[in-house]
Amino acid sequence: MEFVKEFATFLYQKGIIKFGDFTLASGKKSSYYVDLRLVPSYPHEFRKMVKYLENEIAQKIGLENFDSFVSVPTGGLVITSALAIETVKPLIYVRSKPKDYGTSKAVEGKIHDGMKVIMIDDVATTGGSVVNAIKSLKEVNISIKDAYVIVNRMEGADEALADLEVNMHSILNILQITETLHKQNLVDESILEKVKKQINK
Amino acid sequence: MEFVKEFATFLYQKGIIKFGDFTLASGKKSSYYVDLRLVPSYPHEFRKMVKYLENEIAQKIGLENFDSFVSVPTGGLVITSALAIETVKPLIYVRSKPKDYGTSKAVEGKIHDGMKVIMIDDVATTGGSVVNAIKSLKEVNISIKDAYVIVNRMEGADEALADLEVNMHSILNILQITETLHKQNLVDESILEKVKKQINK
Repeated sequence: MEFVKEFATFLYQKGIIKFGDFTLASGKKSSYYVDLRLVPSYPHEFRKMVKYLENEIAQKIGLENFDSFVSVPTGGLVITSALAIETVKPLIYVRSKPKDYGTSKAVEGKIHDGMKVIMIDDVATTGGSVVNAIKSLKEVNISIKDAYVIVNRMEGADEALADLEVNMHSILNILQITETLHKQNLVDESILEKVKKQINK
Repeated sequence: MEFVKEFATFLYQKGIIKFGDFTLASGKKSSYYVDLRLVPSYPHEFRKMVKYLENEIAQKIGLENFDSFVSVPTGGLVITSALAIETVKPLIYVRSKPKDYGTSKAVEGKIHDGMKVIMIDDVATTGGSVVNAIKSLKEVNISIKDAYVIVNRMEGADEALADLEVNMHSILNILQITETLHKQNLVDESILEKVKKQINK
């Protein structure tokens, strides 16, 4: 829990998470905005985050119990590449749309039938992009049972992945982050209430 | 030179470089095809490549003489993220087109006036995408004098970058790769001649 508090505070202090009135790409309104693309600008915090993720996966799954990490561009892939080199594990990734030249395919990297992978992404909201990637992986007979994100916004991703028999794990969720910041008097009660209303319970 | 030979042979043996008749994204014909997106599927080779790149930059530039690495999605960014975590240096990146929501901008990451960066990419051909990224960086007053690529296809990138006063460095170039493979009787004389004709001399 110490890491969660420290990392949530870092996210807030650097403006990586902001509270207010935002409109997301989907057109949905949100009481906060989080963009982890800023994290690699802080190399020590980036490294701590990747190391924490590595330890979580090592303890809960075991680094020897899967063949490769898989991710999706761009934010998630930056994290996964760092994780892959630290753990000396292979990395493949799924394009949102295959390039229209060269060896056109959705999955980039060396794959084999029945290959076991773990999905890594930066932020989960409804799980849309990860769900599409998982479907592309299943089409080529790649086995996936677990997905890890750094921040779970808790707006349906767990359920969407459960429908595909994939467990969603997260390092932090938006409720933990907001509660941690509220305890430190960094965000007020009304913000905490707005965030609670926004999530799926 | 030992790494160059070993890595060129690895690229050939795993089909990461192929010789034949190819049509590139630009519509140009090519006597070979190289796609480094497969490299992270081979974690030990990926790690050696990143470590070699780190040593080159440490020796020629000095890791303390610049503020941050910069890259462009997707192939180059995967390499740069691994390099950034290994060196504990910041990483920023340049989108080809800014996302149309949230904090819309071309450069992702924390920047400041006069910041010194080194560009990393996977493959250089004419240098088009790197040139566009360098222009975006200069617009926000970021200083860039050096760019590193893993494979230089030698089709004008050096000159295009020189026009922007950026030095192009490469770990391997296509002539070295083909000559190394030719010496090992892995590619024949006619292929070597075709590659020589294709490059800018």
